[in-house]
Amino acid sequence: MSNTVPSGRATGAVASASGQRIRVDVADRGYDILVGSALLARPETYAALPAGQVAVVVSNVTVAPLMADRLVACLRQRFRAVSLVVLDDGEQYKTWAAVERIVDALLAAGADRRATLFALGGGVVGDLTGFAAACFMRGIAYVQVPTTLLAQVDSSVGGKTAVNHPLGKNLVGAFHQPSLVVADLETLATLPQRELIAGLAEVIKYGAVADADFFVWMEERLDDLLARDNDALARAIIRSCELKAAVVASDEKESGLRAILNFGHTFGHAIEAGTGYGVWLHGEAVGCGMVLAADLSQRLGLIDAAVARRVAALVERAGLPIRLPSLPAAELVALMGHDKKAEGGAPRFILLDALGHARIAPVDEGLVADVLLSHGAHP
Amino acid sequence: MSNTVPSGRATGAVASASGQRIRVDVADRGYDILVGSALLARPETYAALPAGQVAVVVSNVTVAPLMADRLVACLRQRFRAVSLVVLDDGEQYKTWAAVERIVDALLAAGADRRATLFALGGGVVGDLTGFAAACFMRGIAYVQVPTTLLAQVDSSVGGKTAVNHPLGKNLVGAFHQPSLVVADLETLATLPQRELIAGLAEVIKYGAVADADFFVWMEERLDDLLARDNDALARAIIRSCELKAAVVASDEKESGLRAILNFGHTFGHAIEAGTGYGVWLHGEAVGCGMVLAADLSQRLGLIDAAVARRVAALVERAGLPIRLPSLPAAELVALMGHDKKAEGGAPRFILLDALGHARIAPVDEGLVADVLLSHGAHP
Repeated sequence: MSNTVPSGRATGAVASASGQRIRVDVADRGYDILVGSALLARPETYAALPAGQVAVVVSNVTVAPLMADRLVACLRQRFRAVSLVVLDDGEQYKTWAAVERIVDALLAAGADRRATLFALGGGVVGDLTGFAAACFMRGIAYVQVPTTLLAQVDSSVGGKTAVNHPLGKNLVGAFHQPSLVVADLETLATLPQRELIAGLAEVIKYGAVADADFFVWMEERLDDLLARDNDALARAIIRSCELKAAVVASDEKESGLRAILNFGHTFGHAIEAGTGYGVWLHGEAVGCGMVLAADLSQRLGLIDAAVARRVAALVERAGLPIRLPSLPAAELVALMGHDKKAEGGAPRFILLDALGHARIAPVDEGLVADVLLSHGAHP
Repeated sequence: MSNTVPSGRATGAVASASGQRIRVDVADRGYDILVGSALLARPETYAALPAGQVAVVVSNVTVAPLMADRLVACLRQRFRAVSLVVLDDGEQYKTWAAVERIVDALLAAGADRRATLFALGGGVVGDLTGFAAACFMRGIAYVQVPTTLLAQVDSSVGGKTAVNHPLGKNLVGAFHQPSLVVADLETLATLPQRELIAGLAEVIKYGAVADADFFVWMEERLDDLLARDNDALARAIIRSCELKAAVVASDEKESGLRAILNFGHTFGHAIEAGTGYGVWLHGEAVGCGMVLAADLSQRLGLIDAAVARRVAALVERAGLPIRLPSLPAAELVALMGHDKKAEGGAPRFILLDALGHARIAPVDEGLVADVLLSHGAHP
């Protein structure tokens, strides 16, 4: 299966007073991604949401002290009751127990089906809040206010929500689209550099699988991105969101094309599971995973060595790991079998067949093991 | 808002060698309800399901010893691995912990996204299994094999899935349609009479809100139903499923018309919550709730006293309670406020405006309290 991201399915970014607006068209309805500065506490940001209802803001112990007060104060102008739930910070807390805390907070606030949840934080907060919104009274609205680069360019868009299970990440969840995504560049000011870099892994991914020109732009502007140049960051977020919006619009529930966004993720999930969740950041594991997936693509004759080298070079220049942790190759292969992208037992991989173009195919485990061994796994 | 069940949206029952087939048309896809005898262990029943995948049968300690072996043996002819999860029996076990047991069983069986869950039991098993199917890997297929009259005529059709929360029933759940519903009359042979009667409450409901002729038929054939005449039961199940299919097809996610199927349920849920879940059967609470809702409709001038009396008389003849438990009216009113059908705090009621026709409207709490007081609640 070869996959081309459709043009014209996402309308592309439109400039407005409050930054850029990107439309995501999905089956039932569409929603906007707003990208800009100082959006978080500006009442106009939320002007399209229903007024007078209950709002519950979900955040974590790291993010809440930095910006929850400003969001809550702003929402109080539009909602009749606004409360805040502060969760522990970390992938290990992405569990059903956290969803239950959100449900309890909704009930304590007197929420009904017209209540709205707000996810203020990174991917963990977004996934948990989205899943709580999917389940509470069989589905209420939620707004993503991502505060990490990774969440702004990837996890906050597209409606994938989930919690983890001891046997694997995101094994329990739902497709439930947000009503609005607010990507405020100012929230990145306090983001640790390691997390900024982890977010760049997903930006590199979009270029690799869907837009060669964007990949070239990343090669040219990487130093500006690492130095947090606002214009460069805005461009990276907007283009990433445009590409994701186009893919999600054409395949909301990942029956085909959408899977290309998992480039590097089958390897990445095995790294995360093998090292224990939270040791490697998700973006770090995906960065390394992309290097392996590009190598695999080359070994299968889909791309030439120069393309694989460019992917590895950009990942390395970004400061992302390009060597596997010291784990047995067989263990990593076994962990890929648990990945939910596996169908009928044979792991499928997202492979490059050109810079900016991906395909999906099952790959022989022996070849996968070879790739693992040549990138740092031990026999 | 006045609501008429559309004709022609459900195709109506079609006779076949294996009983009657009713089609439910929903947005993404449709599915069949099969009604007949000896369907459970007949391989043809499952002929439309994908072969060669993992199947997990979910049942409870009451039903599993009676019929799980036959279902599992039959499914082994079509699926490559079939396992069984036996849950505790009762509304109090309709919790996330039970969903987690189902998820664990899926993972232990090596399930991927192509696995199918089978719900063998009543409404609790069906709701739990459906919710597990909605969440596992963000959605897998499931088949309802309801073994109570209530589940056969109501909860197994329409894709409402949920677990309970200490503050209310079904507060956490999803809309997730089954792939197939198998209503085997033989599974009712071991059903206690009290549960059969509870199921009749929902059958009476369909006549009251959507089909006056069916209501009249119930008045005529009630004794046969109570005596478990197979033809009468089959007719009751088929007509109930046809009506439910028509309503679900026109309003899958209950934004309007589908709410009429909650006739008697706002009162009923308050009774269940006030007495403690499991003390009254759901159908018993709904039976009593319909008597109150009919009285409320009469007090609002929507129907005359004769219609309200016919509803009460049929409920009573069925052996269902028509008097409230001894609870304070104010407590029952407060419990209605928690019901998820409440919007913005004012409880909305499903009211009759004729026999066989319902409407939905908010009702003044004072009038609701009057109705409660005249049916056995104390001040």
